[in-house]
Amino acid sequence: MTSTPIADLWPSLPGGSDARPEAAYRLLQAAVESFAERGFHATTTRDIATAAGMSPAALYIHYQSKAALLAEISQAGHAATLALVREAAAGEGEPVARMRRLVEEFTTWHARGRTVGRVVNYELHALPEDAYAVVAALRLDIEREVSALIEEGVTAGVFDVSEVRTAARAVTSLGIDVSRWYTDRSTETPEELGRRYGELVLRMLGARV
Amino acid sequence: MTSTPIADLWPSLPGGSDARPEAAYRLLQAAVESFAERGFHATTTRDIATAAGMSPAALYIHYQSKAALLAEISQAGHAATLALVREAAAGEGEPVARMRRLVEEFTTWHARGRTVGRVVNYELHALPEDAYAVVAALRLDIEREVSALIEEGVTAGVFDVSEVRTAARAVTSLGIDVSRWYTDRSTETPEELGRRYGELVLRMLGARV
Repeated sequence: MTSTPIADLWPSLPGGSDARPEAAYRLLQAAVESFAERGFHATTTRDIATAAGMSPAALYIHYQSKAALLAEISQAGHAATLALVREAAAGEGEPVARMRRLVEEFTTWHARGRTVGRVVNYELHALPEDAYAVVAALRLDIEREVSALIEEGVTAGVFDVSEVRTAARAVTSLGIDVSRWYTDRSTETPEELGRRYGELVLRMLGARV
Repeated sequence: MTSTPIADLWPSLPGGSDARPEAAYRLLQAAVESFAERGFHATTTRDIATAAGMSPAALYIHYQSKAALLAEISQAGHAATLALVREAAAGEGEPVARMRRLVEEFTTWHARGRTVGRVVNYELHALPEDAYAVVAALRLDIEREVSALIEEGVTAGVFDVSEVRTAARAVTSLGIDVSRWYTDRSTETPEELGRRYGELVLRMLGARV
């Protein structure tokens, strides 16, 4: 099982209707793989262009710099996970059922999208200032969605949590770290891991399940 | 609050009795900071030597390469956390008390030693093959200690866990990821975070606390 292509991780982006040329996707995919393998600083625009089967000059038609590629990857990755978290949090059912779905999907995303996940979570320091501000706001929104759902469960008497922010941090942290350790050799499928993590998190939040 | 110097993170190493020259510590410290900031691949031996206030030639007296520095940092960091996990797991008291101590100390270590923690956990792919084998064995030992303590608690009827390996992975993952997100601006001290994570993990394992 290999890591999921980025086009499947942020379905709002793929070309066609938004007229994004296929070459831009190849560059994003090549940048994700290069950054994940060598780190942002050790990757050159030439590395990325070569991996995408283009010349460096062709790369600059689409992106001004490797930082512009990182910014797009990071923003799109964070926007995709925020959308997933929002949809689960605002979905049908009681807080327990929504939290379960949130953790299942957040975990599965980070197992499937581990290559993107590594770039998105471990290269934040390399983002240009304006892109960092956008990403930091998206991260804060993710934490707030999780906190709000925990608080809703506490108010409803189905969660029992003393420090909501710490618990919310633990919930997102567990999911994010999956992108570090999950590999092709992992014996659990992304969905199995998601279901098991859903159980573990609900217990952590004091839900009687 | 700044990150703890490496000499405090693996107390078995500091010079004197083992005759390790002070210059070697300065190089290790400089390497940790450089790798954490720019990543291994983008760091040169000259960067490290300069940060340690030495010439590149002086660096080679102590270390053959930047990979040799990474190998020592990674092995020592993993050995230190394994020692901490072993001591807590083999300590006094019931499985619940020992697991609480294990999580508290593992979490506190990763908050305090976050700079080392980042290098140790996110630059594994850059290790030379022999060093990687050593580190992989240490990581497996950490997971096994945690799994064995969970199993002991299950047998004693104080933990309720269906997938011991997944639960053990979640326990170590929560602690390791602290080195990614914990910063100087975090409002919880490393010890407070440790105590709160201790509570959350015990609940996750089905302990009635």
